[in-house]
Amino acid sequence: MPAPFAFELDATDGRARVGRFSTPHGILETPVFAPVGTAASVKALTPAQLDDLGATLVLANTYHLYLRPGDDLVAQMGGLHRFMAWPGPLLTDSGGFQVFSLGDTRAIDEDGVTFKSHIDGSTHRFTPERSIQIQENLGADIIMAFDECPPPYDRAYMETSLARTYAWLARCIAAKTRPDQALFGIVQGGVFPDLRARSAEYVAGLGLPGVAIGGLSVGEKKEEMNAMLDVVTPILPADKPRYLMGVGTVEDLLAGVARGIDIFDCVLPTRMGRNHSAMLRDGGRLNLKNAPFARDEAPIDAACQCYTCQTFSRAYLRHLIVAGEMLSATLLSIHNVHMLVQLAKDMRAAILEGRFEEFSKEVIGNW
Amino acid sequence: MPAPFAFELDATDGRARVGRFSTPHGILETPVFAPVGTAASVKALTPAQLDDLGATLVLANTYHLYLRPGDDLVAQMGGLHRFMAWPGPLLTDSGGFQVFSLGDTRAIDEDGVTFKSHIDGSTHRFTPERSIQIQENLGADIIMAFDECPPPYDRAYMETSLARTYAWLARCIAAKTRPDQALFGIVQGGVFPDLRARSAEYVAGLGLPGVAIGGLSVGEKKEEMNAMLDVVTPILPADKPRYLMGVGTVEDLLAGVARGIDIFDCVLPTRMGRNHSAMLRDGGRLNLKNAPFARDEAPIDAACQCYTCQTFSRAYLRHLIVAGEMLSATLLSIHNVHMLVQLAKDMRAAILEGRFEEFSKEVIGNW
Repeated sequence: MPAPFAFELDATDGRARVGRFSTPHGILETPVFAPVGTAASVKALTPAQLDDLGATLVLANTYHLYLRPGDDLVAQMGGLHRFMAWPGPLLTDSGGFQVFSLGDTRAIDEDGVTFKSHIDGSTHRFTPERSIQIQENLGADIIMAFDECPPPYDRAYMETSLARTYAWLARCIAAKTRPDQALFGIVQGGVFPDLRARSAEYVAGLGLPGVAIGGLSVGEKKEEMNAMLDVVTPILPADKPRYLMGVGTVEDLLAGVARGIDIFDCVLPTRMGRNHSAMLRDGGRLNLKNAPFARDEAPIDAACQCYTCQTFSRAYLRHLIVAGEMLSATLLSIHNVHMLVQLAKDMRAAILEGRFEEFSKEVIGNW
Repeated sequence: MPAPFAFELDATDGRARVGRFSTPHGILETPVFAPVGTAASVKALTPAQLDDLGATLVLANTYHLYLRPGDDLVAQMGGLHRFMAWPGPLLTDSGGFQVFSLGDTRAIDEDGVTFKSHIDGSTHRFTPERSIQIQENLGADIIMAFDECPPPYDRAYMETSLARTYAWLARCIAAKTRPDQALFGIVQGGVFPDLRARSAEYVAGLGLPGVAIGGLSVGEKKEEMNAMLDVVTPILPADKPRYLMGVGTVEDLLAGVARGIDIFDCVLPTRMGRNHSAMLRDGGRLNLKNAPFARDEAPIDAACQCYTCQTFSRAYLRHLIVAGEMLSATLLSIHNVHMLVQLAKDMRAAILEGRFEEFSKEVIGNW
């Protein structure tokens, strides 16, 4: 048995890495893409379908579960794994990102954040200690430090915010009690290389079982994201997993793994599935509602091994969408999540074979 | 290989029967309950989930598929089996029931019915020949005669309607060209025993591969339904399957099988699944949205072997409903359809053991 939350680095290829992260609910093979189950449900998919399409890690949102059904209820029902019937590794965010996204309805002070529920307008307060307490009630394998995710381009604000984030991270570490959960610290710093570097050094120095990189999926340009990863990942310890938060396109997964990222998550594949869009392995997208697909006997992607592509035509998927059948969301979400999960697995195989760069070029084609 | 559409009667117990009906897409073991895939999708369920819960026969609606996506499109896509990816036996209705339900927007004459689409108000016309042509384009294993389903209590109208239904049945038989489809005639006659008896005699005399009983799920009382079955089934040939249209409660399945019915279908289990209700084996129902289920760790039914009951608590199902997660419709539909499919299978086993009456009493309990 590997030590709890040990990260075994099995191979590298340039800065791309293959590893195994030991959690109480199984060993996570990296690189890995995690679909998001916001309210303890990856929308429109059963856990059996998630397992069937190859998902190994699922993310859930602390903010949403705190409000509904309540973390105390989840704890009473045996924790999040049992509640949502996902037997594998789970990750919860800290609630910070959602709370700070509430805009005018939240107020930050040095101790924490007071906010109004988007459901009923009631007032609530998160502090680092409260976020950890909620995440301990939920019981995910990987939990996240409570931090601010500030606007990426405001340097003065970012410096103030980083000081607060460091203080909050120390409080999260002090508040944590469960030995069966791994707390990841989060590197922030917006688009400023020196702030990112300092943040990475600070978080790396704490000896936590993993490090996340936040604030790189909130509107900045791809070149900026890649430039920040180029600054951050060389500073991070090689023997700890690295999680790039909220990132989930083909291009970004390739760019992230090339720069030493191990874990990704994003709502994109399920959100697009509900919006009639199929994500393609080459980075493109198909809007299946479009009329040209009405008599198209081909699957979304003839090379794809997912249940949807192995079973249904574009014509059938378009029919479901036009007829308002909810099955379309399920079938497109299966395809989209599988596509990213499989891409991560294929990257893993390519790294093990020492051909990640060629693999990446094959996927990207003529970008 | 049994002859196409041969019906082997394997056992009887009182009037209850166990049989096997040979179709081009497999042998159908009866009694059987068929979920309804109105628009070529059993709402919220994949074909894999239908197969997993034990469904063997699926019904689809000619009216809906004619309007959207169009039967010509379905034919061009290889027929309904391939289009919706259901490899087992399929049954289509004639479109008559839906068209006659349109009320003021349809006009009946001796030749057929002119009606307006519920989707866009456009004008269309069904005749017996057109219904058969559409059903041949769809390509189900079992197709239905185009008939009127008139108000059950108006004797004078019923007599006129029956005459027309007989004429239309003859035209359906004449119009039919595909040898790989079984055309079932439909017994009508409302709540009038003599009209039901005459209709049964007429349809039985035509030597069709199966007989349906219509007009018994449209608002009349249970005692009236059972009284009509008591009149009709003794007249029908023993060596042909009997299909009671639109019936799908525990009580009605037991009553129907007790009176010699072999095939049932109903939208109820999936409709209730979308409306937060679980159907129980004892005939009861649970509205999972209710607050008392918030912390209920039990499954819907501890004795149920469906995926939902084997995997999820009532508390989780209630959470999905309150949070507006579409997964609740899928999980409740899995349970509800499984419950009726399994009830039919259990009736089959009880008949083979010669204990159908005891079985029926066990299920009904203290009704």
